[in-house]
Amino acid sequence: MNIVVQKYGGTSVGSVERIKNVAKRIIEKKKSGHQIVVVVSAMGKTTDDLVKLAYDISKAPPKRELDRLLSTGEQISISLLSMALQAMGHDAISFTGPQVGIRTSGRHTKSRIEGIDTTKILDALNEDKIVIVAGFQGVNENDDVTTLGRGGSDTSAVALACVLDAPCEIYTDVEGIYGVDPRLYPQAKKLDTVNYEEMLEMASLGAGVMHPRAIELGSKYDTKILVASSMLDLPGTIIKKGEHNMEGQSITGLAIDNDETMITIRNIPFDLNITSHFFSQLANKSINIDMISQSAPIDGFINISFTAPTSDLEDAKIILSAFEEKHPGIRILINENVSKLSVVGVGMRSQSGVAAKFFQLLSDNDIQMLMITTSEIRISCIIKSKDRELAVTETAKAFDL
Amino acid sequence: MNIVVQKYGGTSVGSVERIKNVAKRIIEKKKSGHQIVVVVSAMGKTTDDLVKLAYDISKAPPKRELDRLLSTGEQISISLLSMALQAMGHDAISFTGPQVGIRTSGRHTKSRIEGIDTTKILDALNEDKIVIVAGFQGVNENDDVTTLGRGGSDTSAVALACVLDAPCEIYTDVEGIYGVDPRLYPQAKKLDTVNYEEMLEMASLGAGVMHPRAIELGSKYDTKILVASSMLDLPGTIIKKGEHNMEGQSITGLAIDNDETMITIRNIPFDLNITSHFFSQLANKSINIDMISQSAPIDGFINISFTAPTSDLEDAKIILSAFEEKHPGIRILINENVSKLSVVGVGMRSQSGVAAKFFQLLSDNDIQMLMITTSEIRISCIIKSKDRELAVTETAKAFDL
Repeated sequence: MNIVVQKYGGTSVGSVERIKNVAKRIIEKKKSGHQIVVVVSAMGKTTDDLVKLAYDISKAPPKRELDRLLSTGEQISISLLSMALQAMGHDAISFTGPQVGIRTSGRHTKSRIEGIDTTKILDALNEDKIVIVAGFQGVNENDDVTTLGRGGSDTSAVALACVLDAPCEIYTDVEGIYGVDPRLYPQAKKLDTVNYEEMLEMASLGAGVMHPRAIELGSKYDTKILVASSMLDLPGTIIKKGEHNMEGQSITGLAIDNDETMITIRNIPFDLNITSHFFSQLANKSINIDMISQSAPIDGFINISFTAPTSDLEDAKIILSAFEEKHPGIRILINENVSKLSVVGVGMRSQSGVAAKFFQLLSDNDIQMLMITTSEIRISCIIKSKDRELAVTETAKAFDL
Repeated sequence: MNIVVQKYGGTSVGSVERIKNVAKRIIEKKKSGHQIVVVVSAMGKTTDDLVKLAYDISKAPPKRELDRLLSTGEQISISLLSMALQAMGHDAISFTGPQVGIRTSGRHTKSRIEGIDTTKILDALNEDKIVIVAGFQGVNENDDVTTLGRGGSDTSAVALACVLDAPCEIYTDVEGIYGVDPRLYPQAKKLDTVNYEEMLEMASLGAGVMHPRAIELGSKYDTKILVASSMLDLPGTIIKKGEHNMEGQSITGLAIDNDETMITIRNIPFDLNITSHFFSQLANKSINIDMISQSAPIDGFINISFTAPTSDLEDAKIILSAFEEKHPGIRILINENVSKLSVVGVGMRSQSGVAAKFFQLLSDNDIQMLMITTSEIRISCIIKSKDRELAVTETAKAFDL
């Protein structure tokens, strides 16, 4: 028999009808000759509702208690899915994260999986049971339930697939991975395959669908991950080890991020201590700097531009004020109406001229690039928000996304 | 320091505001010099909602999964109460039943507490923490969560009080134990104390408030149980070891049960095998026979009357039909419009004439008794439902309840 790990997200198990539908799909897969381990998220908006309840009680809910509270959402969905499968005549058994030995460490609400004991799962599979495991949760060294943070259920599913040496199927409310978010570019093409590196870049650029941690895990263990619709019978997208297809697309995906603010500081005295001290202060406030560009010094002064999440802007302003007081000659410019446009593709490695084509394209459309950063397989630039739609459409067209 | 176990029911923790109110009451108690262990039920109607969800999925939800589902209700309320206490500046820690070592055995959804490991509770109390324990749940030998059935949280609280050798305080939406349900007799008097035996009789007669199992446990360990309002600061009722007060009330309480049907079978051939076989068949269908009366044999025939829960009537009818087919001479009468009226009091032991006074009273008011059964401290009789209100009022008046 071959084991497969399936994961169904919150929308897919959001109602009694949908849970029954998921049960039917699982049974079909089982009948096709598989042993099935299913990971489910909490139903619909359950987790959001629980978070709200916690913050109605306390401005800063203690994280150990928050984890216990949030972990109930998945306990509900695993029980109901197991009931649905059994009502359809198939033996099934549900396990919580702690119960099945998903050991975690690190902070509550953001813990990491340390290891998984597969004994109970394998025993149940050998008894011909469908095994249902609560996503998003594990147990720490104090015997307390912990949660894995955003995208935690994807991580649970991929981690289970890794230790069971099985492929992982992530069923969700989208039909797969797209080169461009179809909400931004309706003609976007679904990708048949994408490699871990590209997917990681896209995930961390906010192109969503899957959390980077789950992809990193899959990459580490070389676990194939299928992302497909939980409602429709369509092939989806397979995330797997990269193949350097010389003939292939130069660009696999495009991502846009509207939640960043660009901050520029002009006329900073050129002194490494000054700039490093400034960025340490931002780091101390947990402000997550994304892009940084620094001009070459002119007459002993430099200009620095960087981007940070708009949600951190208020904290950043406090540090900027203090910096201005200490160095009265500087000038600070804050630009909130910007978007970060990124293109990603392993093809860039082997094909020259991708950056040139991309820049030319923006220039031809009078789209100004305020900042540029690049990695081996990614080019990101800051553009004005008003140019966003045009930039997405023209880039998607030009690179056939 | 002296430990006290408090229990708050579902209504008492039914909203964010009420949880905060409960937190305040706990803090007051702590400030008065106590170490506090709190048991809470699921918020408001959570358990009912979860049961409904299960039956929407499956006509016969597997009980292991049902237990997992239902156990989430208390996990939510313990987390929220712990958050509320910590937000008010008091250290608190919540534990699930499995986590704190409430070991159970027996069937899922109706398990019994086998033992409790107090290590974690005592450690936390010694760290000056308020300990919050999920009621209604424990863990069985398979490491699966189980629930204790109706009134389970009361049982959890009393069991904790027993093993911690502490008094137990049950806070609820009534002000204490009444001799008569105030909804039936608004002038009903609240009892200051009631002994375990009386309380057990009243609880099993459906006079509600507390589950018989919790009272039995309290009786076994001689644990004092206070039942009082969770909203108002009133003295409540203490359930404790019986004192045989010769001068006291002959009757402590009155209970009425409208959910029973009386079945009479006339002209049964007088043969022990026939009747015992008939009652075995009822038992095999899990029909819970309450009262039984059998007439002396006349000409080799007897009449039998018995009562059973009206909810079991359909099952009972199948057995009755088969019985009639086998013994065509018999006659079956089913009377659904009946009520069981019971009076309870340890005073009956020492005071003669209680039964006579009770029967005279009913007779004076033209209330017909269709069946009578008695125990050492209880008299129950079946009356017509139309006489119910008159019977309650006159009995309550005559015995000063």
